[in-house]
Amino acid sequence: MRIYVIGIGAGDPDHLTLQAAKAIGRTDVFFLMDKGEAKDSMIALRRRLMSSYGRPGHREVQGRDPERDRAPADYPGTVADWRSRRSAVVEELIRDHLDAGQTGAFLVWGDPTLYDSTIAILDEILARGAVEFTYEVVPGISSVSALAAKHRTPLNRVGRPVQITTGRRLAESWPDGVDDVVVMLDSGPGLAAAPDDADVYWGAYLGTADELLAAGPMAQVRDEIADRRARARAEHGWIMDTYLLRRPDGKDGPETTA
Amino acid sequence: MRIYVIGIGAGDPDHLTLQAAKAIGRTDVFFLMDKGEAKDSMIALRRRLMSSYGRPGHREVQGRDPERDRAPADYPGTVADWRSRRSAVVEELIRDHLDAGQTGAFLVWGDPTLYDSTIAILDEILARGAVEFTYEVVPGISSVSALAAKHRTPLNRVGRPVQITTGRRLAESWPDGVDDVVVMLDSGPGLAAAPDDADVYWGAYLGTADELLAAGPMAQVRDEIADRRARARAEHGWIMDTYLLRRPDGKDGPETTA
Repeated sequence: MRIYVIGIGAGDPDHLTLQAAKAIGRTDVFFLMDKGEAKDSMIALRRRLMSSYGRPGHREVQGRDPERDRAPADYPGTVADWRSRRSAVVEELIRDHLDAGQTGAFLVWGDPTLYDSTIAILDEILARGAVEFTYEVVPGISSVSALAAKHRTPLNRVGRPVQITTGRRLAESWPDGVDDVVVMLDSGPGLAAAPDDADVYWGAYLGTADELLAAGPMAQVRDEIADRRARARAEHGWIMDTYLLRRPDGKDGPETTA
Repeated sequence: MRIYVIGIGAGDPDHLTLQAAKAIGRTDVFFLMDKGEAKDSMIALRRRLMSSYGRPGHREVQGRDPERDRAPADYPGTVADWRSRRSAVVEELIRDHLDAGQTGAFLVWGDPTLYDSTIAILDEILARGAVEFTYEVVPGISSVSALAAKHRTPLNRVGRPVQITTGRRLAESWPDGVDDVVVMLDSGPGLAAAPDDADVYWGAYLGTADELLAAGPMAQVRDEIADRRARARAEHGWIMDTYLLRRPDGKDGPETTA
C-alpha cells in the first residue's frame, strides 16, 4: 500500500502543482477528515480537485476528527494527545479501506510540512507497526508563499532571516534576532501583541473568493484587521489567516556584515 | 504592460502550479537573465516550460546579468549595488522588448518571495518612473518545501517556530530562540559551523535528475555532505543546496506552555 500526502495549496484551485494533480490521478482512496466545523469550503475544494484530476472509480472515505481543545493550558501535550487519537482514527481508515496494492491520499491544505500533522500521524501509525505502507509527500503552495505573493513582498530582506511562528509564541514576546516574522495559527493574541513599529501584511481565506487582504503600519491597521477578522469569523464560522510582520532594520541589533 | 513574476518550483518540472502554467500561457515575452555561469540546466527547465505551456508566438529575450562579487565584505551593500545594476539591465529589456498591452514574465526558481531579487528589482524600476507597468507574483514551490517533502519531515515541531536563514548568518552563530533552522545560500561556512547535536536534512539539485539527499546526526554526516557538495560542485560547475537543522528539544530554553 502506498499513501500520498498531497499539498493542495492555500485555497486557490490553481495553486495545485502538476505533481499533485498526477498524484491525485493515481489515487484509489482519498481519506478526508471531517473537521466537525463549518469548513465546508475546504471540503468543497478537495471534492473539486478529486473530481477534476481523480481517476475513474476513485473512492472517498471520511474519518471523524477527534474533538480538540483549542485553547489548552498545555499546548504541546494537548496536541500530542489529539494527534494520538487522530492517528487511531486514521489507522482504522487505512486498515479498513485500503487494499494491498492500492494507493491512498490525504489532501492537505497549504504545504504538508508546515504546521500540519499528517506526516507525524503517519509516522506514528508506522511506528506502531500494525499497518504497513510507504508514503510520499507532495509539496504544496503554503499560505506563507500565497500571502507574500498577494502582497508582492519578499519574505526576507537581503541576506537576512525570516522566522515562521505562531500567534501564541508572538504573544509571549517578539522573537530574538529577527525583524521579519510570519505568524500562523493566531486566534487573536499575536495580533494584539504585535509591535506598533512593524509593518503588517495580512491575508485571510487566501486565493479564495472570500480573500481578505490588508497592509500598513501596525499602529494604523491593527484595529481594522481585528475588526475584519471578527466579522469574517462570524460570517464564515471559521477563519484561516496569516500575516507577515516587518520591523524597521536593525531591531535585531546592528547590521552585521552577513 | 503587465509583468508576471512566476515561481516555477525547485527543479522538478512538475512543481509548476496550474496558476503558473496559465500565466506562462498568457505571456508574450519571457525575460531570461543569463547568469554567466554553467547553469544550463536551469535555462533548460525554463525553455521546457515555455515550450510546453507558452502561447504560439511568444518570444524570449535575454539580458546579461552584471558581474557579482560572491564573497564580499559588505554583503547587503554589495547586493544592493548589484541589484541596481541588474535593475538597469531589466529596465532596458522591458523598455526595448515589451509593447503596450503586452505581457512579460520572469520565470523564477523556487518561490519569488524567498531569497530572490526579482520583486525588489521591479519595485526599483517602478520607483524610478521611467517605465510603467503592473506586475503580479505567482507563488512557487520553494526549495524549502521541496526539501522537507523529500525528507518527509515537517519544518516545525508542534507549536514551535522555524527560522529560514543564510549560511553566512549561521556561521556567525546559532539563531536565538529556535531549534529548527533552514539554511539557504550556504557556500560552506554554515555547514562547517552547524552544531554537532543537530540532525541535518540536506538536499541539492532538488527535484532534478541530479538530486542528492543526505540526513542524519550532524556529527556523523557533516563530512559526507561536505564531500558530496564539493564533488557535485566540481562536476556541475555550480550547486544549489539547502538543509534543515533540527536541534534537540529545549535548546532554546525550557518548553513554555505555548
